[in-house]
Amino acid sequence: MKTKDRVIEEKICPLEFAVNAISGKWKIPIVWQINEGKKRPSEFLRGIGNVDRRVLNQQLKELEAAGIISRESFNEVPPRVEYRLTALGEELVKVLWQLNDWGDLLLQQSAKI
Amino acid sequence: MKTKDRVIEEKICPLEFAVNAISGKWKIPIVWQINEGKKRPSEFLRGIGNVDRRVLNQQLKELEAAGIISRESFNEVPPRVEYRLTALGEELVKVLWQLNDWGDLLLQQSAKI
Repeated sequence: MKTKDRVIEEKICPLEFAVNAISGKWKIPIVWQINEGKKRPSEFLRGIGNVDRRVLNQQLKELEAAGIISRESFNEVPPRVEYRLTALGEELVKVLWQLNDWGDLLLQQSAKI
Repeated sequence: MKTKDRVIEEKICPLEFAVNAISGKWKIPIVWQINEGKKRPSEFLRGIGNVDRRVLNQQLKELEAAGIISRESFNEVPPRVEYRLTALGEELVKVLWQLNDWGDLLLQQSAKI
């Protein structure tokens, strides 16, 4: 591979990795909800709506595996589980705000077309 | 809908709109290539690799319809078509750099796991 191609590829790669990590169904809404102070799966279900519990659990697992959120399980009856953003998750939220601002521009432009 | 839910929904909405606009296959690589100074579909094909010409054309159409890139057709033989980023596209590139930086953090963390 030529050096120039490699430079381009290196620029694309972390970005695509990032997009893949956040484009799973409900991942961004989950991260937002946690950022809003919600912690428990039952709260996410109420906040998101229309999401299947099994699908939610799978997304939570993937976000946890990626190191974006962390899971804490409390030894209580009934068992209690709480999620929070990791440092990496907090950094993601900052970028999502910028993407949100850009989405606003995009929406304004779409409204004009 | 309660006011609080509406506030959350409004925050999610432009963001999801933004993510949907850029998560189509090859859209981000196309935007990068144009940002790197490439203009013609044949250049994108060389730069991306493994992308079908019809798929590329579809993605270009969607990016153009969203107002992220613009298309200029030159009345020459053979016909020549060039793409460039719109102002909205340039704004997107700024956000993508930040997402790229976050992707770097994510990659570093994945390497550790």
